[in-house]
Amino acid sequence: MTTPIASLLSFSLDNALEKAVGPDHGLTDEDWTRLEGKIASGHAALMEARKAGQYGFADLPHVREGLDAIQAQARIAADRFADFVILGIGGSALGTRAVLSALGPTYPVPGSVRPRVHVVDNIDPGCLAELLQNFDPATTGFNVITKSGGTPETATQFLLVKDYLERSRPGKVAEHLWITTDPERGDLRAIVEKESLPSFPVPKEVGGRYSVLSPVGLFPCAVAGVDVSGLLAGAARFDRYWQEADPLANPAYLFAGASHLLHTRRQKSIVVLFAYSQKLFDTADWFRQLWAESLGKRASLQGEEVYAGSTPIRALGTTDQHSQLQLYTEGPNDKFLVFVEPRESAGDPAIPALYPESKSLAYLGGHRVSELFRAERIGTEVALREAQRPTGRLVLERVDAEGLGFLFQALEVATVFAGRLYDVNPFDQPGVERGKVVAAALLGKAGLDDVRGQLREAGVEGISPEGGK
Amino acid sequence: MTTPIASLLSFSLDNALEKAVGPDHGLTDEDWTRLEGKIASGHAALMEARKAGQYGFADLPHVREGLDAIQAQARIAADRFADFVILGIGGSALGTRAVLSALGPTYPVPGSVRPRVHVVDNIDPGCLAELLQNFDPATTGFNVITKSGGTPETATQFLLVKDYLERSRPGKVAEHLWITTDPERGDLRAIVEKESLPSFPVPKEVGGRYSVLSPVGLFPCAVAGVDVSGLLAGAARFDRYWQEADPLANPAYLFAGASHLLHTRRQKSIVVLFAYSQKLFDTADWFRQLWAESLGKRASLQGEEVYAGSTPIRALGTTDQHSQLQLYTEGPNDKFLVFVEPRESAGDPAIPALYPESKSLAYLGGHRVSELFRAERIGTEVALREAQRPTGRLVLERVDAEGLGFLFQALEVATVFAGRLYDVNPFDQPGVERGKVVAAALLGKAGLDDVRGQLREAGVEGISPEGGK
Repeated sequence: MTTPIASLLSFSLDNALEKAVGPDHGLTDEDWTRLEGKIASGHAALMEARKAGQYGFADLPHVREGLDAIQAQARIAADRFADFVILGIGGSALGTRAVLSALGPTYPVPGSVRPRVHVVDNIDPGCLAELLQNFDPATTGFNVITKSGGTPETATQFLLVKDYLERSRPGKVAEHLWITTDPERGDLRAIVEKESLPSFPVPKEVGGRYSVLSPVGLFPCAVAGVDVSGLLAGAARFDRYWQEADPLANPAYLFAGASHLLHTRRQKSIVVLFAYSQKLFDTADWFRQLWAESLGKRASLQGEEVYAGSTPIRALGTTDQHSQLQLYTEGPNDKFLVFVEPRESAGDPAIPALYPESKSLAYLGGHRVSELFRAERIGTEVALREAQRPTGRLVLERVDAEGLGFLFQALEVATVFAGRLYDVNPFDQPGVERGKVVAAALLGKAGLDDVRGQLREAGVEGISPEGGK
Repeated sequence: MTTPIASLLSFSLDNALEKAVGPDHGLTDEDWTRLEGKIASGHAALMEARKAGQYGFADLPHVREGLDAIQAQARIAADRFADFVILGIGGSALGTRAVLSALGPTYPVPGSVRPRVHVVDNIDPGCLAELLQNFDPATTGFNVITKSGGTPETATQFLLVKDYLERSRPGKVAEHLWITTDPERGDLRAIVEKESLPSFPVPKEVGGRYSVLSPVGLFPCAVAGVDVSGLLAGAARFDRYWQEADPLANPAYLFAGASHLLHTRRQKSIVVLFAYSQKLFDTADWFRQLWAESLGKRASLQGEEVYAGSTPIRALGTTDQHSQLQLYTEGPNDKFLVFVEPRESAGDPAIPALYPESKSLAYLGGHRVSELFRAERIGTEVALREAQRPTGRLVLERVDAEGLGFLFQALEVATVFAGRLYDVNPFDQPGVERGKVVAAALLGKAGLDDVRGQLREAGVEGISPEGGK
């Protein structure tokens, strides 16, 4: 059961079928037959929603408006700075990091990369202190990214950097700082307008985890020299496969359907994206947000309590063969493992044949490293199959801008389609609100006195009074 | 339910109890009472095995033999090189990476760190090509680490680097290359002896995932300038807590007991180590191997099929609040989440109070970044508790060499003790053998013709004949 090479991506499910891993853990024709109705109605719903303009992410590959400005500003930033720091969290960071890991050097020659682009997606106090201390403000630029304009982590990063630039680059702050936020709303947008800071809009109808192909990801990637037109072109190429309702012609639907069936009918509550590619490991991390935040939902579209969603894990081949494979092979049979493999590699050294007398070295000599890499992946696949663990395999033709754009779009469509199968809304995230409100209340944000009262009753200490410090 | 601060580490379980998250998801006194017998016998067994010298890892903090040589060689390497590359995989890499992330700079001033220590724990062909191309052989040193001497990934790295040095540094290879392997056995040990290469022994009775405090981790860390005596001293300090059979006096036992009870009696099949510290994120990755490979076992000590082990996941606060928290709060209630938090931070900027008129920025001003970090962690804890998700909290006094050594030892003891509770052997890894054999057979390793026959029958393509290429 393999989709034809969907121009840039194919998905094979042979090792997740009954004949490979047995009836307790593998899928049968009957499973797929039962799902036929949902697949057909889900596809129809997606097509309709898309036509009605409800899927902002689906239009991104076709938007050319603003691209010239992004590229022009990126050239300015690239010329001006030795370091360029992306400040944002979650969907404002993960897509950019995925692109930079996939397309940038892993071991750069010192001094060869300019600007160095850093994705700072946390507020660890020690790390932020280091950042402000170690970078040279004269040669460092910043891109602050937050759709709402009020994410406290990003707001804090913004305040720190704004103050730092005002002190170190008086009168020149606008030369160092780009803001990516809602085109109209939010406190950051108001500051942008008032202070005439350079900025980019996050399209209203695009949520954070679906925003890599918006200015959120395109501007930082362009600063790093990535072919952002190629990213968009690759994503656009997925469109014709999205037209296909048949999972055997649409790798996104086959992936979503298999994950859903293996979860709901074979108790595989964990989906492992097992990248046999150092370069695609951060793409697996990007997917981890996309899948978890889209499908991990208490309530169905009808308001029933369903506690939906499988738990995504990213793993790295062959590295995690030496860390997680023991558990994957012999522990609870509760996982669907999906290998992600590029067909081509940018470099591929020959293994020197140096010690013909040594049994554990001799057989390696003369092979390409890619042959060992592939043999290890097959060895893992065979071992998992023999232990009745279902696996799938995503093969990406090339790890370049176009291939990556195609992969992003395919996985976003897969996630939205899985939302239909799980019967949940893949675009909201109601479960993260409560923690945010509690954190803001603790720090004294206005209007949250009732929450502060609850926290006091629960014995929480260190609550700031209204108004903060 | 909190252990007293065990000098450097405490573990709190209050939010995993029935009164916090209800009887369906929280632990009761009865759960602990049922486990009493196993805890007592497990503790007795551990004490006895340790006394009998069966736990190599337990003795490492007290070994001073060889430490002078490690430090002397490390000084030589540090003086000689601008880059120092660690070649190894799994247990030969994860401990070193954890230490370097925790104690090294996250955003170094370019040129300020010498030598830069790189942990290369994979064989991605493109990345290895880049490595050999981009590093300057004259100023680069290598440490090849493999206990058996025959791990194919590390053997391949060794062959590539040996050839590269012989061509680029003829007659000087031994100045660039250190080998850490079995003191007597294996092909690498034979090569070390024959070619008089500098080397370190991996103690026979210490398995890879328990080896961070052996020369495996100590030499690379010493090259990077880490206080390795402090690591050992911190680990040694855990000894007195290990004497305690009562989980309330022993954070390792409390952690192991809670994880086991929540898994086997409350269906929490996933344990999330949620580091509220960028610096401790790779320590969570080190733990991921330790826990998965030690406990993920098909067979019990009595040979029964048990398919034991919970699945470890590492998460990062606050980053993963914007990626995984939606799933953790609203998805299946199948996780035990353990916050890992340092009490002190190396730096802690004050958030500037710049925009008093802006509702989403004003309340942040005047706080320290650490206050926001802590508030976000508490917000997450409260939200998870209200959603009836059990959480625990490991508090580490300081992220320094001593604190880290203590944490390593506590988590190793926790894992070995959990092995007793799950009734499995925490020191073997039978489930990874099959994949290795298949990979070696594919590449033509001698003596595996029967496996090649099986693979041919199964339709696997690209099998090399005996003898390789």
